[in-house]
Amino acid sequence: MKRPLLMIPGPVEFESDVLAAMATPAHSHVSAEFIEVFGQALEDLRTVFAAPDGTPFVIPGSGTCAMELAVANLVEPGDRAVLTETGYFSWRMRDLLERHGAVVDMVHAPAGSAPSVEAVEAALRKGAKLLAVTHVDTSTGVLAPLAEYAAAAHRHGALVLADGVCSVGGQELRMQDWGVDVVLTGSQKALAVPAGLALVMARPAALQAFHARRAPVGSYYADWGLWLPVMEAYLERKAAYFGTPAVNNVFALGTSLRQILAEGMEARWQRHARLSRAFKAGAAALGLEQIPAEAYQAVTLTTLYYPQGKDASGLKAVTEAGVTLAGGLYPDLKARYFRVGHMGTARIGDLLTTLAAIEAAYDLPRGAGVAAAQQAW
Amino acid sequence: MKRPLLMIPGPVEFESDVLAAMATPAHSHVSAEFIEVFGQALEDLRTVFAAPDGTPFVIPGSGTCAMELAVANLVEPGDRAVLTETGYFSWRMRDLLERHGAVVDMVHAPAGSAPSVEAVEAALRKGAKLLAVTHVDTSTGVLAPLAEYAAAAHRHGALVLADGVCSVGGQELRMQDWGVDVVLTGSQKALAVPAGLALVMARPAALQAFHARRAPVGSYYADWGLWLPVMEAYLERKAAYFGTPAVNNVFALGTSLRQILAEGMEARWQRHARLSRAFKAGAAALGLEQIPAEAYQAVTLTTLYYPQGKDASGLKAVTEAGVTLAGGLYPDLKARYFRVGHMGTARIGDLLTTLAAIEAAYDLPRGAGVAAAQQAW
Amino acid sequence: MKRPLLMIPGPVEFESDVLAAMATPAHSHVSAEFIEVFGQALEDLRTVFAAPDGTPFVIPGSGTCAMELAVANLVEPGDRAVLTETGYFSWRMRDLLERHGAVVDMVHAPAGSAPSVEAVEAALRKGAKLLAVTHVDTSTGVLAPLAEYAAAAHRHGALVLADGVCSVGGQELRMQDWGVDVVLTGSQKALAVPAGLALVMARPAALQAFHARRAPVGSYYADWGLWLPVMEAYLERKAAYFGTPAVNNVFALGTSLRQILAEGMEARWQRHARLSRAFKAGAAALGLEQIPAEAYQAVTLTTLYYPQGKDASGLKAVTEAGVTLAGGLYPDLKARYFRVGHMGTARIGDLLTTLAAIEAAYDLPRGAGVAAAQQAW
Amino acid sequence: MKRPLLMIPGPVEFESDVLAAMATPAHSHVSAEFIEVFGQALEDLRTVFAAPDGTPFVIPGSGTCAMELAVANLVEPGDRAVLTETGYFSWRMRDLLERHGAVVDMVHAPAGSAPSVEAVEAALRKGAKLLAVTHVDTSTGVLAPLAEYAAAAHRHGALVLADGVCSVGGQELRMQDWGVDVVLTGSQKALAVPAGLALVMARPAALQAFHARRAPVGSYYADWGLWLPVMEAYLERKAAYFGTPAVNNVFALGTSLRQILAEGMEARWQRHARLSRAFKAGAAALGLEQIPAEAYQAVTLTTLYYPQGKDASGLKAVTEAGVTLAGGLYPDLKARYFRVGHMGTARIGDLLTTLAAIEAAYDLPRGAGVAAAQQAW
Repeated sequence: MKRPLLMIPGPVEFESDVLAAMATPAHSHVSAEFIEVFGQALEDLRTVFAAPDGTPFVIPGSGTCAMELAVANLVEPGDRAVLTETGYFSWRMRDLLERHGAVVDMVHAPAGSAPSVEAVEAALRKGAKLLAVTHVDTSTGVLAPLAEYAAAAHRHGALVLADGVCSVGGQELRMQDWGVDVVLTGSQKALAVPAGLALVMARPAALQAFHARRAPVGSYYADWGLWLPVMEAYLERKAAYFGTPAVNNVFALGTSLRQILAEGMEARWQRHARLSRAFKAGAAALGLEQIPAEAYQAVTLTTLYYPQGKDASGLKAVTEAGVTLAGGLYPDLKARYFRVGHMGTARIGDLLTTLAAIEAAYDLPRGAGVAAAQQAW
Repeated sequence: MKRPLLMIPGPVEFESDVLAAMATPAHSHVSAEFIEVFGQALEDLRTVFAAPDGTPFVIPGSGTCAMELAVANLVEPGDRAVLTETGYFSWRMRDLLERHGAVVDMVHAPAGSAPSVEAVEAALRKGAKLLAVTHVDTSTGVLAPLAEYAAAAHRHGALVLADGVCSVGGQELRMQDWGVDVVLTGSQKALAVPAGLALVMARPAALQAFHARRAPVGSYYADWGLWLPVMEAYLERKAAYFGTPAVNNVFALGTSLRQILAEGMEARWQRHARLSRAFKAGAAALGLEQIPAEAYQAVTLTTLYYPQGKDASGLKAVTEAGVTLAGGLYPDLKARYFRVGHMGTARIGDLLTTLAAIEAAYDLPRGAGVAAAQQAW
Repeated sequence: MKRPLLMIPGPVEFESDVLAAMATPAHSHVSAEFIEVFGQALEDLRTVFAAPDGTPFVIPGSGTCAMELAVANLVEPGDRAVLTETGYFSWRMRDLLERHGAVVDMVHAPAGSAPSVEAVEAALRKGAKLLAVTHVDTSTGVLAPLAEYAAAAHRHGALVLADGVCSVGGQELRMQDWGVDVVLTGSQKALAVPAGLALVMARPAALQAFHARRAPVGSYYADWGLWLPVMEAYLERKAAYFGTPAVNNVFALGTSLRQILAEGMEARWQRHARLSRAFKAGAAALGLEQIPAEAYQAVTLTTLYYPQGKDASGLKAVTEAGVTLAGGLYPDLKARYFRVGHMGTARIGDLLTTLAAIEAAYDLPRGAGVAAAQQAW
Repeated sequence: MKRPLLMIPGPVEFESDVLAAMATPAHSHVSAEFIEVFGQALEDLRTVFAAPDGTPFVIPGSGTCAMELAVANLVEPGDRAVLTETGYFSWRMRDLLERHGAVVDMVHAPAGSAPSVEAVEAALRKGAKLLAVTHVDTSTGVLAPLAEYAAAAHRHGALVLADGVCSVGGQELRMQDWGVDVVLTGSQKALAVPAGLALVMARPAALQAFHARRAPVGSYYADWGLWLPVMEAYLERKAAYFGTPAVNNVFALGTSLRQILAEGMEARWQRHARLSRAFKAGAAALGLEQIPAEAYQAVTLTTLYYPQGKDASGLKAVTEAGVTLAGGLYPDLKARYFRVGHMGTARIGDLLTTLAAIEAAYDLPRGAGVAAAQQAW
């Protein structure tokens, strides 16, 4: 039978209540029911991003749309931006920064690691409006030391923008405590909502920088000026219109956020950390090596080299066993590794199921991975 | 997060397509769509019961309703029935047989086993209209040697009625090949459909016995005479009315049967056997003992004594870990064992998840059960 | 496009929340969530049946199952029962009474009417344990004067049993005030829940009669003695087991009952009365005649003769227009009339849609029916 | 009871199958199932847009996102664009054109009408890269003579871009026959899919203009260059990645498109025309006046002045009657009119229901509107 298990780094498995909310019959975007759900979701996001003073934006779009919704409003032509390299999505960020006119100073690091805080600070010392960081890079599984970077940025007067697509809702992230000014994400990862919503949280310094800009925002759809009155209205439980919200996706977001807050952010971060420890222990017991060095391992996904002499063709047997994993994405290593997401609604049983499918598909010692994961749980 | 896992011996986890069919908008029970789905489902049941010459009955009701739908039509006051004892549901069968006037000769067996074929044959030798057998007893996990019993019954001219509530769709059962005349089941077990449908398959000798009866059937709702024209009509893709069918439940049944036949009965029985072997290996590695002796172990569920010095209170921790198991049901042993269902849509990952939850809740060697199950898979 | 409209006298159109509840993922019938929902539903039914002192029974089954669940427990072989004739379902009731041993005195009435209270009282005067009444007959649309009948029955010491399949939740019915002892119904009519649940409400005198019986109940599945401990347990929010409840159907029942009580019974009865008045006015404006005389017209459905020279073949065009109606069911008139249900979730718009489809299909004055219905609304 | 009816000009009522597709369990965006559904949807869009030679783009976003996805790729700084004024969304188009650097020559027209073809041609004669037209303006209900405009544009070498948000799938639109180069829409209107997808169809001349551009596209997310390889891959039933598609919304789109093509575009356009005629006849019978003059009335919605002496407060009673309508949107007239959408899945019954609610809420002659609509149907 099917009952398949999706263990890629997004989309993730969804709760049945969240899926049911996707099928809510047609509602006007200015109906009382929708206003309440959307308003509450925007409020709840402040808790999820740990940004009590933040202004949330939720618009129909992908994670890339969220990147533009963050970058386009902060960057003006000629602005200097420091960017840390941690994988494929750092290069995507570079494209976005440059598209909107930034002069980018990219601080490089070898695959599987992040630049040192010192190297980043050295770049910031040269002057920058903005430091851009991929908090967790979905391509490599690298976790950047965002809190330390942010502290360095503030020492040099730069705003801090983090791509939290693969972190928000799973990897510990404390926007206000750490001094991160803007964080963006998509719905389909640790927020556990089907893809289709672009989310940005902007704290006061970011909004100030926006209001102080002289150049118009290059993208109309991503222009905070057009969405701000809408978000403020729904926060006050009033309707407002700029573009039609993705009503059903927002109902699903509202449902998932209520579940997330019922779990609590500290508990949620700890669950993700514990799941990650268990899965990585299982993988280690099977002799599978990770891309990131230990200091840079994210808790929301694990990236693993194929066993000696094996390649992506083995993933087919994993899929046939009912578990879907993701191939490599980082250009230089693409063919040599695969990715396992364990975020959002993931449970220990999902990890055991996944390890069992890997053991069978790659002819690894049966039971060794699942036993190690269970011991480390 | 929730995404809970239900591992009791029914209801079981359902495929998302089956659940979606439960939410089909209102249809008339005489609409073209419903007639086609119901007719096809009735046909498909012949394959599932391995009874090409069978007449299927599907009516709104529980498994107990299905028992009455089988018993009430075959038994007339004063008829002699031989009944094999394998657990709680043998006693339920006794109640039903007696309610409808049978004189019951119950062939006893100690808990965890079934009567020998010799003992059953000895009882049959005394003359009986009917042999009644609980194929798999949900309370004890005991599998009865139905094929052998049936052969014995036919040597003595008795009809064979089997309670297949915990077997049909999971445990190998070949009605026509084995000479079983009537099998009953409920929807919520190995057929993987929400509870609410009572199903009976009657082969020609059973229908003959029905048509030859002199006493009216004690239950109006369970009277084959009233339902036969309805089932025959839908099989011919025509509408007919006696009682309103449970339209949405039948849509779900139709969806599940299509999935079951796509898997194929032989493959399905083998999957259940393999899952059972894996789970029982995992349990053994944890030192957990089964109720049934090896010769009598069903593949659809496993019944296990609690570890030395432990009891049902540990199941609470299993539930908190997201896995729901069932307590004991057989009166004499009720407090000493628990039950794990692994039928219908069950996958190896569900078993690993379950074993992991048991290891943690009962403080058993972490990883030992999951490793053994994975090795035996 | 489809978005079809089902306007038969059951099943009816369901609220989307009720359908979503049908697709609830697998729950154990002894889970905390299910216990709470089932317990609350049983309580809510007392309000719906207007029977604060009633004992509710909800089991998997059709309306016919509910009839047996009522009749089998009250009737013992040789008991005398008076039965009022109002249509097809009176004859079904006769079958059930006789199956369980009653000697039935059927008080006849011409098609489209109900026996006079005097005639019923005359029959009761001869002595009877029970008066059985079809409150609203789904076949003819005849409403019986239940309150008056009940008063007469109590004058003669007979219990009153009403078939409320086509009335409970739509047609005014006050069990306790009117002195009705047992009312039965199915889920798929004015309760607006998919078919599959048999419901009975039994007041104290009925339970007393049950406890005083000497003969065993003919049907095991319908035996109150086996279900009573289960219903009492769930009412106290405890689990108990006899047969597996139709878990998903009960979730749907719980959702619908909460909606029904939010509307309120008085408001609900009035809405049904108003809808009925509007529809009947629309039909009259089209020259369509009803089966029941004015004094006997139910509010939950309308039964109409086909226009002069027309027959059931016109219903096909109604169906193609997206509206499903029901043909005749009462044997003598079957081919001469059709039935329109307007209960449960029905709205004025559904009636206009239906009348419009009838106008078009039967070539009646376009707009005359819809205008008259709207004026009478 | 609820079963509310949403009759605003988007979102519209959805088919139950489309809603069920929104709740499809998690799928990878590179799974075989998703690739097939997305590829087929892209193909089907060519039929819906009547653009066999078109290249479809479907990305997560609102209708405004679709506007940017069209405009940003065609306009380079300094390009001259002629724009026809027909309502609020013409001004939105102006903002987008200007944001991306166009010099806009807006051809004005009084509220309720569209500029004459002569006036548009006069503006085109001055030279323009692009003619931008709102095919149906959701704010005013004005239908522009797109085919005639397009012919004029081609006489002067200008590309034709049409905002089809309120037309595609309901109002007749033949891209290839009429020579329209780019049409954009959102999912939540006549395509009958929940909001969240931005759709653009680009014909060869538009793609040529894109490939010939010298300036980078101002919006990264809307850049055809980044999405083209993805759309081409899915059309060939291969996976490709740029941004994560809104997987569940695409499943819903696929379901709706199959239904749309089963109806057929000619039949669908005719159904919309017939519905519009019926609704407008009903409104006229109630003395309600439309905003657009007869030559400019769209078939997907109707915009109506409130009755003499009445205002938007009456809409509350309409909502309480279960029908949701939309208030005015066009700045100058906002408080004086309301809007009724009748597109996508709309049926005659929906219009009767709506007219009945209007009659009651605004104390208009009961039955007059519904009768007239029914006669005109």
